[in-house]
Amino acid sequence: MSNKPTVAVSVGDLNGIGFEIVLKAHTKIFQIVNPIYFISKDLAKQSADLLNQKLPKNFQVYGEFENFKIKPSKVSKKSGNFSFESFKQACDYVDKKKAIGVVTMPINKESWGKAGLSFVGHTDYLKHRYQQNPIMMLGCEKMFVALFTDHVPLNKVPDLINTDKIYNFLLDLSRDIKKEKIAVLGINPHCGDGGVLGDEDSKIQKAIEKVNKKLGKEQFIGTLVPDTAFTKANRERYKNFVAMYHDQGLTPLKALYFDESINVSLNLPIKRSSVDHGTAFDIAYKDKNPSVKSYLNAVMWLIG
Amino acid sequence: MSNKPTVAVSVGDLNGIGFEIVLKAHTKIFQIVNPIYFISKDLAKQSADLLNQKLPKNFQVYGEFENFKIKPSKVSKKSGNFSFESFKQACDYVDKKKAIGVVTMPINKESWGKAGLSFVGHTDYLKHRYQQNPIMMLGCEKMFVALFTDHVPLNKVPDLINTDKIYNFLLDLSRDIKKEKIAVLGINPHCGDGGVLGDEDSKIQKAIEKVNKKLGKEQFIGTLVPDTAFTKANRERYKNFVAMYHDQGLTPLKALYFDESINVSLNLPIKRSSVDHGTAFDIAYKDKNPSVKSYLNAVMWLIG
Repeated sequence: MSNKPTVAVSVGDLNGIGFEIVLKAHTKIFQIVNPIYFISKDLAKQSADLLNQKLPKNFQVYGEFENFKIKPSKVSKKSGNFSFESFKQACDYVDKKKAIGVVTMPINKESWGKAGLSFVGHTDYLKHRYQQNPIMMLGCEKMFVALFTDHVPLNKVPDLINTDKIYNFLLDLSRDIKKEKIAVLGINPHCGDGGVLGDEDSKIQKAIEKVNKKLGKEQFIGTLVPDTAFTKANRERYKNFVAMYHDQGLTPLKALYFDESINVSLNLPIKRSSVDHGTAFDIAYKDKNPSVKSYLNAVMWLIG
Repeated sequence: MSNKPTVAVSVGDLNGIGFEIVLKAHTKIFQIVNPIYFISKDLAKQSADLLNQKLPKNFQVYGEFENFKIKPSKVSKKSGNFSFESFKQACDYVDKKKAIGVVTMPINKESWGKAGLSFVGHTDYLKHRYQQNPIMMLGCEKMFVALFTDHVPLNKVPDLINTDKIYNFLLDLSRDIKKEKIAVLGINPHCGDGGVLGDEDSKIQKAIEKVNKKLGKEQFIGTLVPDTAFTKANRERYKNFVAMYHDQGLTPLKALYFDESINVSLNLPIKRSSVDHGTAFDIAYKDKNPSVKSYLNAVMWLIG
């Protein structure tokens, strides 16, 4: 038996780009971990055939799945149902401590809808499954950004800035990031310039002070003026950031490190990481040599 | 006589970092343009003395200024009054077509206040002086971002998204950027995901369509999904961007190109560029070797 950690791989929507990336990266992944792929041998072969590839001998599959016909780039009930089952069974496996965590390839939300699933994505399913509020964090080795709010219209964001809610969020985050400093952004231009440009920043400031007091150490730094939060000097100073809203964190992250970034779910009983891209129906099964960087980084994060 | 273009240099607050940068960059600047410095010989000598430097022989000063004692790193009525006069007289000079434009070193807003000036900064003065709405654009050779709204609290931004106002803004912008494509960002995560995450993006979209129709060409592109707007691929595709709010544009800009960036005012009868940093009282007259990159780029922009 090898001493490599075992990782559960949820292979994602088979009509998309996921399985091509899985096959392309397998040899590298296998050097680092013992990957268990949540797919049937039949479906794996069918996808490999479409990609003009052979399944590697050491390609270990697991789980019970209904067979269906893969239709490249199509939204489909059957592929939606499959990608959900692949994820669910991978989570079951990790719950039983058979793997250290789950890495997910992208699913198609419309296909999940067609399959009668009401979850808007992986993270939403995890929220229901574990009855906890997952924290969405994106990034790469150089920089991670946790999002206090995520898929919220911009005009609803300022109302969600609440000292107690931010305090609880930061406290949850400190359970997953125990030692490193975490820099927290303000929300208004120049952090409100002393109230002239908005008063929400002082609420964030209070939450930082409260959580540092609770923790008995200055783990959280801030508030940082948003527009200079991610300068080179600050990225040398801090690796972990909290953004108040989706685009505040993700726009600079993707400007700097788009290809390398991954998406992880914190504040859950299991470790879960994901590629930071979608099913890419436009290039699926078209021999376009998709990047495996995000997938490799997602696996590395689980063992790191 | 040389054929170099003449540039008016407003030397900024003499208690700050500005004049040290002016002296440090003079030889380089003089190779490119004929700089006219808006300061008296006495004040220039006083500042140079404090910096243990000599004024270069070809250092050409211009204007009428009251003498006063430079107090490094201090907010002061007299230095506030001086930095305003330096700017005002530089603008007069450019209005008379004696120079191709004005480049500004930073002023201190508190010092302007002490001097009884109600303008919140250079751009605000230009707005009053020329009775036009200047467009604030920041960036460097690789990427420029024009801001549709600037110093506005985040909770006020969504209400300012109005098709007609954006249309007028884009039309104004197209007078200064005549040929190049300009990419316009949406405002909500994923540009609202078809309305699920906010409906302001469709108003921006309509403004883009309207202005392109008016111009008879597809100069404006968008709306771009904010979080992927500034990826490497997009920056290779576009050099000019419009952000809907301060931090949407400036956070990624400063993450990528903090040192090199400049601040320019468009939609005015004169050309004006500025360094993208403040008076830096913390390092003024302390022999800290401040970067001249932003100043050099600001001068280059005027002649470019």
